[in-house]
Amino acid sequence: MKPKAVILLSGGLDSATILAMAQEQGYDCAALSFRYGQRHHVELECAAQVARAAGVADHRIVDIDLRGFGGSALTSDIAVPKDRDEAQMEAEIPVTYVPARNTIMLSFALAFAEVIGADHIFVGVNAVDYSGYPDCRPEYVKAFEAMANLATKAGVEGHKLTIHAPLMSLGKGQIIAEGMRLGVDYALTSSCYDPDDQGRACGRCDSCRLRRKGFADSGVADPTRYSPGV
Amino acid sequence: MKPKAVILLSGGLDSATILAMAQEQGYDCAALSFRYGQRHHVELECAAQVARAAGVADHRIVDIDLRGFGGSALTSDIAVPKDRDEAQMEAEIPVTYVPARNTIMLSFALAFAEVIGADHIFVGVNAVDYSGYPDCRPEYVKAFEAMANLATKAGVEGHKLTIHAPLMSLGKGQIIAEGMRLGVDYALTSSCYDPDDQGRACGRCDSCRLRRKGFADSGVADPTRYSPGV
Repeated sequence: MKPKAVILLSGGLDSATILAMAQEQGYDCAALSFRYGQRHHVELECAAQVARAAGVADHRIVDIDLRGFGGSALTSDIAVPKDRDEAQMEAEIPVTYVPARNTIMLSFALAFAEVIGADHIFVGVNAVDYSGYPDCRPEYVKAFEAMANLATKAGVEGHKLTIHAPLMSLGKGQIIAEGMRLGVDYALTSSCYDPDDQGRACGRCDSCRLRRKGFADSGVADPTRYSPGV
Repeated sequence: MKPKAVILLSGGLDSATILAMAQEQGYDCAALSFRYGQRHHVELECAAQVARAAGVADHRIVDIDLRGFGGSALTSDIAVPKDRDEAQMEAEIPVTYVPARNTIMLSFALAFAEVIGADHIFVGVNAVDYSGYPDCRPEYVKAFEAMANLATKAGVEGHKLTIHAPLMSLGKGQIIAEGMRLGVDYALTSSCYDPDDQGRACGRCDSCRLRRKGFADSGVADPTRYSPGV
């Protein structure tokens, strides 16, 4: 029987890639997505399409309530920054940072893993393109894994729970190349922080800029639907 | 200016006590409670009353969705065990264990702390009476704190985030004695896993039994409203 894994699936490019990577590595994958008051809710539809295309039988969407805390351009009325270059992106923790988001999402993944008996969690965090986010660093993932092994019955009963972050040290172009090799259909994914009312990408937020550069670097045609004029 | 702290406030006896302890230690306390599909929703009303009685100005209630994962008598249709003695309670991880619950709640506390600029989180976990719960052990709390300091802007910016678990090594009788010294009104609290439709305690679940024994041990009259016949 294949070992079970929980995949944190946002509907973006990175998490579609880790799902394909986990499947290639032989895991029986369940997927977990969140409705967290994000402005770009189109990503949940993308997550469902990606899960379906990959044949994932168990895809759960959990409602979480981060808006009550405020504090991020992804969940409140702060403007999403546009047209920033890489130096600007790296200079500071971005306003799109959601407090403790990865910790909260990994915690739910931990609960889900415990319930279905999975000893593996895959998360698409990446220290290269998100160097401003404290919870996208390898030392953070290691610390979460150590905590998780003390938090759960699995830990007590001698299973080892492993947090896999296979994109950690890959650039966006490398991620896309890997996904193309694995047959990921990136047309199903959405990365934009600020899509228009038809779900088309703005092309100008940090996430769009990284994604566009990734397609350019990898030499793969960008299948993203952009707003007119981008 | 007083240092800020986030208090995880369930409406039970333990968390009412840590709120009083944190206030005595000079913290400006904000409180965080959860609506997580618990059968004993009366505890949220208790949490609000406890917060009001303590003069807490900022009390947030966050909806979280643990029922989708199943797996616990506190959130599903599994029967709450009754009339177990201490040896039985300690023999195994109880069916009332909610997967990763403390991790999820502490993760939201971490988000809340970051948003309001608090460097302190108080949680009422206790290794004495909840020895069957992996996420109530001191090594778990330490590991969460280590992770939290890598997860957030506070950690990056050189603040130290501290998780306080002041009840960790206290018996229920000692907790009650401490709370009485601090003027906690335990009549406002609810601990029962399976209250009746008027919010009265069953007197027989593990939590009720620990609480009753605590009042007996401390020599304090038990102010709990029990179902008739208990």
